[in-house]
Amino acid sequence: MEWNPDGSVTSPSGFEVGTHASRIKYDSRTDLALLHSTPPSACAAVFTRNQVVAAPVTLDRATLLANNSAIQAVVVNSGNANACTGATGLANAQQMQILTAQALNCPPDAVLVLSTGVIGVQLPMDRVAGGITAAANEMSAQHGPLAARAIMTTDTVAKHAAVSVSLPAGTVTIGGMSKGSGMVHPDMATVLGVFTTDADIPVRDLQRMLDTAVSRSFNRISVDGDTSTNDTVLLLANGASGIPIADSQTIALFQQGLDRLFIHLAQAIVRDGEGASKFVEITVTGAADDSAAHKIANTIATSALVKTAFAGSDANWGRILAAAGRAGISFDQNQVSLSIGVADPLALQLVQGGTPVAYQEADAAAIFAEPEFKVWFDLHAGPGTAMVWTSDLTHDYVTINADYRT
Amino acid sequence: MEWNPDGSVTSPSGFEVGTHASRIKYDSRTDLALLHSTPPSACAAVFTRNQVVAAPVTLDRATLLANNSAIQAVVVNSGNANACTGATGLANAQQMQILTAQALNCPPDAVLVLSTGVIGVQLPMDRVAGGITAAANEMSAQHGPLAARAIMTTDTVAKHAAVSVSLPAGTVTIGGMSKGSGMVHPDMATVLGVFTTDADIPVRDLQRMLDTAVSRSFNRISVDGDTSTNDTVLLLANGASGIPIADSQTIALFQQGLDRLFIHLAQAIVRDGEGASKFVEITVTGAADDSAAHKIANTIATSALVKTAFAGSDANWGRILAAAGRAGISFDQNQVSLSIGVADPLALQLVQGGTPVAYQEADAAAIFAEPEFKVWFDLHAGPGTAMVWTSDLTHDYVTINADYRT
Repeated sequence: MEWNPDGSVTSPSGFEVGTHASRIKYDSRTDLALLHSTPPSACAAVFTRNQVVAAPVTLDRATLLANNSAIQAVVVNSGNANACTGATGLANAQQMQILTAQALNCPPDAVLVLSTGVIGVQLPMDRVAGGITAAANEMSAQHGPLAARAIMTTDTVAKHAAVSVSLPAGTVTIGGMSKGSGMVHPDMATVLGVFTTDADIPVRDLQRMLDTAVSRSFNRISVDGDTSTNDTVLLLANGASGIPIADSQTIALFQQGLDRLFIHLAQAIVRDGEGASKFVEITVTGAADDSAAHKIANTIATSALVKTAFAGSDANWGRILAAAGRAGISFDQNQVSLSIGVADPLALQLVQGGTPVAYQEADAAAIFAEPEFKVWFDLHAGPGTAMVWTSDLTHDYVTINADYRT
Repeated sequence: MEWNPDGSVTSPSGFEVGTHASRIKYDSRTDLALLHSTPPSACAAVFTRNQVVAAPVTLDRATLLANNSAIQAVVVNSGNANACTGATGLANAQQMQILTAQALNCPPDAVLVLSTGVIGVQLPMDRVAGGITAAANEMSAQHGPLAARAIMTTDTVAKHAAVSVSLPAGTVTIGGMSKGSGMVHPDMATVLGVFTTDADIPVRDLQRMLDTAVSRSFNRISVDGDTSTNDTVLLLANGASGIPIADSQTIALFQQGLDRLFIHLAQAIVRDGEGASKFVEITVTGAADDSAAHKIANTIATSALVKTAFAGSDANWGRILAAAGRAGISFDQNQVSLSIGVADPLALQLVQGGTPVAYQEADAAAIFAEPEFKVWFDLHAGPGTAMVWTSDLTHDYVTINADYRT
């Protein structure tokens, strides 16, 4: 496996990107990206589970029902989510699909549409149309990183990478980009992930591998399926390498590469979380099952009191136990233990048998003062485990979100 | 019904209070209160549903199992929650019970113990013992407001009131105090409520009336039973007025007074929420049932994105719809409506049929800029309703909680 931190969605063969500054919301930044797959791609997708879904999600679900084996383009805009926009919004999403199909000379049902930004405002379709035409004139296999920039909202860094996987028949490449700037927990702003590969993969296998990778990455920065109106992760496989992923060995190797890329780009969202100054890995073990462990880990990871303690470098572990206790999972508080550290094995145990052990407060505070650290909560009652990633809750988060629209 | 905003737990006949500055955590404030009921009281109680419970909760549950008809004293300390303190913590809570019983000359199982403050630190029992002795020497029927002050943690105002209810047989009085300073959602710091009455009420009826009052007040500022390690609400009825609450008419009148007092003191916690600058009432109607409405209302009320929009006076209703959509309740996004205002009927409709109506942004911003306003979300799909109260999420909240222990 060869890791390429500068890679992108155009790292695999047969993909090209064009972007444009269309002034959808802001004046001086790119806000529209076209991704084109020269050979038609198989496409797997995971969408938000929110009851309120944006027009592009409705459209893409329908499009993929009709055609998930020959997707040729993805058009993405930032600055406007096209959510809560009713029939006009759906018509606008369809118009984006048609305009992209015309610009790239493919059928409309070979085009997927993604939007992210403010909710409840109709798209300025003249600007969007102009952006699609202009972006189509800028298509290049070098422009993948530009797409990662164009889809940003309050993100501060473009998130993209690629990985190459060596298989017996040759090398395939997987590229990707992600965006998502909300604190991620508990109310993430839109998370988008677009992944490409030149491997040849049947769509059913592709969907299974996508589901697995998402469960190991994007779903670990989310809460019990809590998702925004627009969240979408796409995986396109165009087969341009001529190398099939079919037998169990190649599937396993490909999944390894996919997982690494997904985890990297999901973690990148947390690291770039709105106002985030810390990256914290929370592991729960000893639960009755993985689902119970995940509920507890998520409750800890989304607790405002826990996250403000992280921000303040205050090793206030009582808040961690109190959060765990309200996750809706039964456990014996007299059995639990808690450790913290910057690397495995975790250096400092704080709690044993539900009560504090003798440790130096300064040692605990020093770990909480690190930009990255780990928390391990063990129920000592079963085989269930879960790991999630979260950030701290800072003044900057409030500043960003108290006045997002102005 | 006669409302007494300056009333307290000593407004009803037969109750007295003593307080003391015991230096449990801070040097220059009262932190220990004794409440004494001269005639033994029937006592109803509601405790936290958290899996992790503080020693006083464990002790009080056991005490009330043995004796809920002749409670004579409640001892409360602030500055230390006596939670996650193991066997030593339980022994200390028992010691508080015994010391109070000795100081007030009653059996230990006639004493209930409440603690609030930092988790995971053993109580300084010498100071607690000194405080109990000193407080017992200061008992007075005028000192109820002092108890409301002694139980404060990061609360900025003492919360107490009383109400008198006229019944055919005469007047009974209900007094109360509350504290609770966390943002209340989703991770409230300890909420304590202690209520007293001189009415004569059998304990079974008392518990039912307490449960009803809590469901209409303290449970509307909480999340699906999400409670801290120490949350406790007590209602003591000592019968000193000689007036029984027995038939359905007097029960209904008493419940009205009880509800008003509970709602006032629960809302006072939100108004005094950590860093809170706004008080927002959220009503959900048109759900399949009340439980579904409550889930949606709570999800809106606890959303960090919604609460920061409140803080910024930004009428970003898209966040409200997005939060509703992830509450785990199915609904048709094309049917929902949303209105806001400062008084009923709400002045400004923002959303109809899932999409924005034509309104002036300045009008919406003006309402969100008010210190108190209301949000009404209607699913138009059933009879279920719920109302909850919340605050905004401000810089001050982060400041208070990022460095609570230092």
